[in-house]
Amino acid sequence: MKIIFDTDPGIDDAMALAYLGAHPQAELLALTTVFGNGGVDITTRNALYLTQRFGISVPVYKGAHTPLHLPAPTPAPHVHGYDGLGDIGALQGFAAEAEATSAPVRIVELIREYPGEVTLLAVGPLTNLALALELDPGITGLVKEVVIMGGAFGWGPRRGNVSPVAEANIINDPHAADRVFTAPWPVRAIGLDVTTQCIFSTAAAQALAETGGDTGKFLFDISRGYEKLYRERDGFAGCALHDVAAAIAVFEPQLFDYAKGGVRAVCDGIALGQTILKQDGLLFPPGAWDNLPSQTVCIAVDAEGVLGTYARTISDKAQLKKAS
Amino acid sequence: MKIIFDTDPGIDDAMALAYLGAHPQAELLALTTVFGNGGVDITTRNALYLTQRFGISVPVYKGAHTPLHLPAPTPAPHVHGYDGLGDIGALQGFAAEAEATSAPVRIVELIREYPGEVTLLAVGPLTNLALALELDPGITGLVKEVVIMGGAFGWGPRRGNVSPVAEANIINDPHAADRVFTAPWPVRAIGLDVTTQCIFSTAAAQALAETGGDTGKFLFDISRGYEKLYRERDGFAGCALHDVAAAIAVFEPQLFDYAKGGVRAVCDGIALGQTILKQDGLLFPPGAWDNLPSQTVCIAVDAEGVLGTYARTISDKAQLKKAS
Repeated sequence: MKIIFDTDPGIDDAMALAYLGAHPQAELLALTTVFGNGGVDITTRNALYLTQRFGISVPVYKGAHTPLHLPAPTPAPHVHGYDGLGDIGALQGFAAEAEATSAPVRIVELIREYPGEVTLLAVGPLTNLALALELDPGITGLVKEVVIMGGAFGWGPRRGNVSPVAEANIINDPHAADRVFTAPWPVRAIGLDVTTQCIFSTAAAQALAETGGDTGKFLFDISRGYEKLYRERDGFAGCALHDVAAAIAVFEPQLFDYAKGGVRAVCDGIALGQTILKQDGLLFPPGAWDNLPSQTVCIAVDAEGVLGTYARTISDKAQLKKAS
Repeated sequence: MKIIFDTDPGIDDAMALAYLGAHPQAELLALTTVFGNGGVDITTRNALYLTQRFGISVPVYKGAHTPLHLPAPTPAPHVHGYDGLGDIGALQGFAAEAEATSAPVRIVELIREYPGEVTLLAVGPLTNLALALELDPGITGLVKEVVIMGGAFGWGPRRGNVSPVAEANIINDPHAADRVFTAPWPVRAIGLDVTTQCIFSTAAAQALAETGGDTGKFLFDISRGYEKLYRERDGFAGCALHDVAAAIAVFEPQLFDYAKGGVRAVCDGIALGQTILKQDGLLFPPGAWDNLPSQTVCIAVDAEGVLGTYARTISDKAQLKKAS
């Protein structure tokens, strides 16, 4: 499974990368970075660090530093830390360089190199994907699938984390999201409403720290502050595997239930950053959802399945490594 | 229970009025009319006709003919008919005059006359209520409750009938709705997502035509085309009791489950007309829901209870009338 992982590490990005690095069927073609959980210099440095730390051999390409049309979002260091990886000091003294090619250019090149084979897995703002579409609209027919973590689509009460209806990745670049959802390529979106059901408990993180080798231990260490946020804000002991859920959806689509229809992202007003699905089959007067490609959105999840797959994949890899 | 019924008849408005007229505890102070299911001249004439037809002694005051800031909505005669009451010819030759006072003025007068006692039951666009607030902001502390049919708030898939997220009453005057929801008076909203669960079947309508006297027969006759729309568009035999559900909520609040929080109506962009709840207790960065009054919105309904109450109330009244 050829994957371009578009990411803004970020603690749950690190978890998703660990999963991808451990999955025997994942062939990571590139990491492409974007602003989001931190500025793009920080997320790029973090991506480079994580590939080394997890022993994943994959080139890193730096991407967009601002949204297409909006000002750069206000940093939120209380979520991922000032260094984007939980402020445990892991990055002190670390320096490395990304590849010379920009992320959107490299996305186009790889899709053209492997027509019909590339899955674009995007777990940050969708700016790089929108820029790639801008560079070469012809890629829409050549991508295997675009799988994203973003928005909210299901029938649950949790529809936003930045506003009552806006999820962070989408509100950080709603214009890019609208471009990606309305392009004629197959998008599958794993939204906040279902990722917030995938709560990796403190106990499970502790267990993975013991069975998951250095990777498991590292993920435990960087997520202490992240868990604290969930405990204080949402009242539970653990953290949501947002980006991990999207990564797992690439390999285990059957762990999710889906609806299909046209999707728009709201680009202005108080609903800024909301994703709105018009389910196929529902009839409305002419409007903003007419003649859109029918995309796939997740409306329910087998959370136990996601949590189990995540821990098992990383553990199995660590045991293999130990044995070899 | 002193009620001002703000209405745009409309077939389900007629059903709601029949229920109110039959309810032994309902003291109807006024019908105030508004554009919506038809132009305000049509809805006013229909309100006058219905009070005569149902034998309800209540004055009718004509209200707004356009939204506060938007152009008047396009008529939708395929829903309520060209005459707003199913085009069965009932209104041919009918003529009557509304009271001289305008609806918003009369709303203010009645609230001032009965401080703390008046329930404003509004089942059309909220323009008259917004104009009353404009005339006299002091009424917010004097109203018992504002109960509306409008928007969508629950966790179900049905969030709009004019767009994927917009219900007709709200999108017909979103500025008025935003004004009403954010005013410091107690609003309780019964939204589309729950009213579409209250499906009065063809068989039940037929039964009520037999037990409900002339009123039951009339409601059956005017709703044949309305049912046809549901059958062809939504695939079931019956019709949703939108406005009736709000009327019943006045007397039987226990038939509904509620959430509480600040509510805004979206006044521009593709989400125009959406109602957005920020549930109390959920935390977000500073935004458009800060410092709003906590309103009450319906998130679930005992549909059997609503349907039963509706039919029983109208039947009981007809039997009483027959016996007297």
